[in-house]
Amino acid sequence: MSGNTYGKLFTVTTFGESHGPALGAIVDGCPPGLELSETDLQRDLDRRRPGTSRHTTQRREADQVRILSGVFEGRTTGTPIGLLIENTDQRSKDYGTIMDRFRPGHADYTYQQKYGLRDYRGGGRSSARETAMRVAAGGIAKKYLWDCCGIQIRGYLAQLGPIPLALRDWDAVETNPFFCPDPERIPELEAYMDALRKEGNSIGARVNVVATGVPPGLGEPIFDRLDADLAHALMSINAVKGVEIGAGFACVEQKGTEHRDEMTPQGFLSNHAGGVLGGISSGQDIVASLALKPTSSLRLPGRSVNLDGEPVEVVTEGRHDPCVGIRATPIAEAMMAIVLMDHLLRHRGQNADVRSATPVIPGSVQRDG
Amino acid sequence: MSGNTYGKLFTVTTFGESHGPALGAIVDGCPPGLELSETDLQRDLDRRRPGTSRHTTQRREADQVRILSGVFEGRTTGTPIGLLIENTDQRSKDYGTIMDRFRPGHADYTYQQKYGLRDYRGGGRSSARETAMRVAAGGIAKKYLWDCCGIQIRGYLAQLGPIPLALRDWDAVETNPFFCPDPERIPELEAYMDALRKEGNSIGARVNVVATGVPPGLGEPIFDRLDADLAHALMSINAVKGVEIGAGFACVEQKGTEHRDEMTPQGFLSNHAGGVLGGISSGQDIVASLALKPTSSLRLPGRSVNLDGEPVEVVTEGRHDPCVGIRATPIAEAMMAIVLMDHLLRHRGQNADVRSATPVIPGSVQRDG
Amino acid sequence: MSGNTYGKLFTVTTFGESHGPALGAIVDGCPPGLELSETDLQRDLDRRRPGTSRHTTQRREADQVRILSGVFEGRTTGTPIGLLIENTDQRSKDYGTIMDRFRPGHADYTYQQKYGLRDYRGGGRSSARETAMRVAAGGIAKKYLWDCCGIQIRGYLAQLGPIPLALRDWDAVETNPFFCPDPERIPELEAYMDALRKEGNSIGARVNVVATGVPPGLGEPIFDRLDADLAHALMSINAVKGVEIGAGFACVEQKGTEHRDEMTPQGFLSNHAGGVLGGISSGQDIVASLALKPTSSLRLPGRSVNLDGEPVEVVTEGRHDPCVGIRATPIAEAMMAIVLMDHLLRHRGQNADVRSATPVIPGSVQRDG
Amino acid sequence: MSGNTYGKLFTVTTFGESHGPALGAIVDGCPPGLELSETDLQRDLDRRRPGTSRHTTQRREADQVRILSGVFEGRTTGTPIGLLIENTDQRSKDYGTIMDRFRPGHADYTYQQKYGLRDYRGGGRSSARETAMRVAAGGIAKKYLWDCCGIQIRGYLAQLGPIPLALRDWDAVETNPFFCPDPERIPELEAYMDALRKEGNSIGARVNVVATGVPPGLGEPIFDRLDADLAHALMSINAVKGVEIGAGFACVEQKGTEHRDEMTPQGFLSNHAGGVLGGISSGQDIVASLALKPTSSLRLPGRSVNLDGEPVEVVTEGRHDPCVGIRATPIAEAMMAIVLMDHLLRHRGQNADVRSATPVIPGSVQRDG
Repeated sequence: MSGNTYGKLFTVTTFGESHGPALGAIVDGCPPGLELSETDLQRDLDRRRPGTSRHTTQRREADQVRILSGVFEGRTTGTPIGLLIENTDQRSKDYGTIMDRFRPGHADYTYQQKYGLRDYRGGGRSSARETAMRVAAGGIAKKYLWDCCGIQIRGYLAQLGPIPLALRDWDAVETNPFFCPDPERIPELEAYMDALRKEGNSIGARVNVVATGVPPGLGEPIFDRLDADLAHALMSINAVKGVEIGAGFACVEQKGTEHRDEMTPQGFLSNHAGGVLGGISSGQDIVASLALKPTSSLRLPGRSVNLDGEPVEVVTEGRHDPCVGIRATPIAEAMMAIVLMDHLLRHRGQNADVRSATPVIPGSVQRDG
Repeated sequence: MSGNTYGKLFTVTTFGESHGPALGAIVDGCPPGLELSETDLQRDLDRRRPGTSRHTTQRREADQVRILSGVFEGRTTGTPIGLLIENTDQRSKDYGTIMDRFRPGHADYTYQQKYGLRDYRGGGRSSARETAMRVAAGGIAKKYLWDCCGIQIRGYLAQLGPIPLALRDWDAVETNPFFCPDPERIPELEAYMDALRKEGNSIGARVNVVATGVPPGLGEPIFDRLDADLAHALMSINAVKGVEIGAGFACVEQKGTEHRDEMTPQGFLSNHAGGVLGGISSGQDIVASLALKPTSSLRLPGRSVNLDGEPVEVVTEGRHDPCVGIRATPIAEAMMAIVLMDHLLRHRGQNADVRSATPVIPGSVQRDG
Repeated sequence: MSGNTYGKLFTVTTFGESHGPALGAIVDGCPPGLELSETDLQRDLDRRRPGTSRHTTQRREADQVRILSGVFEGRTTGTPIGLLIENTDQRSKDYGTIMDRFRPGHADYTYQQKYGLRDYRGGGRSSARETAMRVAAGGIAKKYLWDCCGIQIRGYLAQLGPIPLALRDWDAVETNPFFCPDPERIPELEAYMDALRKEGNSIGARVNVVATGVPPGLGEPIFDRLDADLAHALMSINAVKGVEIGAGFACVEQKGTEHRDEMTPQGFLSNHAGGVLGGISSGQDIVASLALKPTSSLRLPGRSVNLDGEPVEVVTEGRHDPCVGIRATPIAEAMMAIVLMDHLLRHRGQNADVRSATPVIPGSVQRDG
Repeated sequence: MSGNTYGKLFTVTTFGESHGPALGAIVDGCPPGLELSETDLQRDLDRRRPGTSRHTTQRREADQVRILSGVFEGRTTGTPIGLLIENTDQRSKDYGTIMDRFRPGHADYTYQQKYGLRDYRGGGRSSARETAMRVAAGGIAKKYLWDCCGIQIRGYLAQLGPIPLALRDWDAVETNPFFCPDPERIPELEAYMDALRKEGNSIGARVNVVATGVPPGLGEPIFDRLDADLAHALMSINAVKGVEIGAGFACVEQKGTEHRDEMTPQGFLSNHAGGVLGGISSGQDIVASLALKPTSSLRLPGRSVNLDGEPVEVVTEGRHDPCVGIRATPIAEAMMAIVLMDHLLRHRGQNADVRSATPVIPGSVQRDG
């Protein structure tokens, strides 16, 4: 495969540029019989959609997805599901000034070097607009995992620049434009973002994603470990520069007695592993965290070069997210769902006779206090 | 593929258990004409080999690799390269006590749940012994990248538990058993490890890997970005819990003006991106960092359960690395080499007509002071 | 991948049902810089299009393809090319009578058994309508192969039922609705088809496909031999039951002295191999032949069962091709083009340093008489 | 993957040259719990082994296979199975005369053109010796299919040069060195082969392979149809030039009323489809046929060229099979087993909820007389 497909048994292939006529995806390998409609996918698309608050890009896209195949009389048929979203708010004039120069921190330079030419309108294929199709495709995986297996995937903003956010309330996450899990910090976030926008600058963020209800056994050692595939999938999201599973980089300073998750008949006593041991799910929550860089599209001028290698100054006047991490939560959820879905099918394929086994211990974290 | 193969055009497939008769690999897709002998692979195998200092496991393995195919009259032929290492020091008696119980923090439990049975001797397939074949296979990639493209891949220990280690001297890395890049800190490392061993505990570590001389253009958006594949490959190494590219998690607190790597005709002014923009190499150094958890094989007792779910105490008396991160440097180098090699071939395949282009700007970081 | 993707570096993924809203494809891995427009793809789509003569199905589809991505200012960008064809002439009422029964010789029964449900309208995904996207995608490959490498791919009808057709004139192939290469036999074909239609029956056919200008070196032993991949791709076309390369089944009765293609400095003396030796192209013409079964959609009643396993009689009243082989020529060309394109890129990837070599001997067949 | 791997979930990767130290394979994806020993694989290896009658090459190879991993206490563990066969009877001196010239009809020329160099000893990687590992790997698939699913795969010689052989007696197939299913024709075969050997020539053959007990539902439309994958796998065998499923090329002259396999509550009334409809198994026997060319290694001189393109005469004095089709039966069985195994796992993966369904009708052919 040539880069635009993810997955082995449950595969997602996408196409589309920021300012082209449409974005699309083909989701192959969805089991037959799943109830599915466009409405099921629209909710997450709306969560990712731009322009829903003053803290994200003001580009207006309805992001209405159409299902073009693979569903018959309200159920999936096992054949590939074609998805399409038409682009409606491309203002190509915004981008004319950057057609001959490379925005620093963007993929302009690397696309030009790799392909010898590029669609410079809004970043073309490298635009985060591409992630809309991930969310649509991931919505199918999320629905199957929940409907058929009781697996739930949720994410939240864990840090915005210097402001760490603790997981206080899952329900709160959906009630604010930041996916913030600590309602008390929202005014602080708003103030920070307003100041940032005024400054013309951008900021990084951290997003956490959690899957609950995952049975033990998912993941294929050696190279297709569940955590390796999660790292792959999450790092493939625009702007992501780091991925952690469980304790992540904190484990560097941990001792073995602290890190190892002891087990009792009632379950594990901790979850530093993030739900994955030896590349295989343990039945505990799958916990991943990702770092998103600040966008490089700024109206503050930056030094760069043009196609001829001459020095130029770049100012980006378009409509951009000052914190791309804010809208990343549904994208990260989608990618985790796609990974788990793929591994669920792969595990079923090879271990059909084993999978009915009851786990030896319950999956949840137990405090034996 | 079913989990034991990595790569699309340059593929590595491995087999072998800790206490089985042998480990092996098939390296497919190596270009023809590369000068290659077993000696070329042995150097990195010796760097990874156990028992070379008192700070690693005392298991004694010669780790002598044999090339069984794909090389004729000293040159690769383009056909698959079969590699074999016989196991010589399996003391299965060390492991009899854990055949009916799950060592906490290990893959015992998840293998049992996934497959319904497991080779419990030394962790079987989940043992880090498997990484010997990654190093052997990666050695082929390293040699090709250097001989044919001038790409060099090097790693070092960046942190051992609480002790961060700065990159002061690349040459020093190969002269101490820790792969420590700061010779002055070696006594401190030795003292720390001696105390740890006495305590019977283990510790985490951080390893950095750097590729220099990488041309711009490697990496296949959207899902097979170079950084996504690096995250995949590095996270697939035993004990790894986090991966960063460039600034990594530090970018969460960075502003756009700080993070974006500005460009001048003389080159980039910084490398927060770690050499990857939009999933494609920029010509700058590729920089990755990984977090390795402390091993869970401890002689300090831990709570666990047995096959019947009954509570047991686990004590691991075998020969183990108190810091698996110490021997991880050549493994991380090998995986980065495999990833770059695969992407080099893929890029050549699709962009044969483009790839002769001279980069618009030099790849190295320039300080325009 | 889950069945709807073909290729490793040049990949084609398709979706769409006979009576759904649209058919689509994503073509990934096309090199950048190729001049491409919808017009380039329309010619072959029109060759395959139904309803252009009285000898094919009377379903009326414009089969107008739209390129939704991957092309910018008239050139491919190296990013995935999204293709879409809207269905316009679905008469679902034609198919109501078969919703609860299995047409013999069709995929109705196997789809039902595999998936537990099926889109019965016009055969759903199993309809030959799916091949429209193969032709569109193959058109991209054909154009690249010709524009950039001088490789030409052409096919013709080699036999219609009992009537064998010799290759007398390539130019004639495009001037008759049968793709018949022997203009003198056309009246015979018309008479045969008219009688067949009157009878309400259908007939099988043989199609030959030939690629000229293929350089030596394409094909990846052992399993991804060029001929093995051609067999895969051609056998994946609806109704195909047999594939031959070169002499094909005639080689069963050949002796070694007859079959082996001797070589002289002026080139090969024959081409029984069909241009492939050891799975690798030899520089001779690639020659493949395929057998297409007669369609099973007949108005002559056939015995079958319904969903409950009860005996029923099936009569198919819809609009069908009495000889699906007639329209198969452009489909077979498309599949051969996709295979060659994929192998061209793969060969370039692994053998970048070798591929500039001049072939030792010319590729064409030489008669040294 | 780079050509030496077959399969998606059940994958076989091989290495090894005719005159190298060893042949090997890695079988990945075998379900855990299968009883397996080297003896299980040896039987088919012995069936394929050279030198067992005067009608095959006199090279003497024990072909003793070792299982190096993936089996513990007599059962598969779900981890990759490493297989190794040491070469013992390489007489490299036999081949010195062909190091600078290309044997006509062999892969010498194409390997040289593709890779720029080649291992000329005994054909190197292109030697049919490679098929030993297919047989070993296929033996695992055959055992699983039979032990766990009751699927049986058998083959026979269907034609040797001008002598067609009818399937009269399955039991007879294993009692003669030709895999001939008609015991009365054996003297005729022996006489033909003796005359051929005296003449110094070689001859083609046809082999049929049949799988019984295959449940409906295996095969993944569109591109990974069961018949397409069978065509791929069978055409990848050395010397194969044609593949048929069911009626094969005979369908060209069949009418729809003749070809379509009508169905009754008691089952299908015929099996022209060869057990595959729409790319999915129907529950009927899977029937494939393959054409094998005569070997080109002859002591009768042939015209060719050397590395410099100069005319030379080639005489092959080594030990060769005068009819490679004779030993092809176990190889064809192995490849069919690998294909069915892979599709069984893939089907289970995607259709776990469907697969318990009882087929609507019995799979076997019913004569309703």
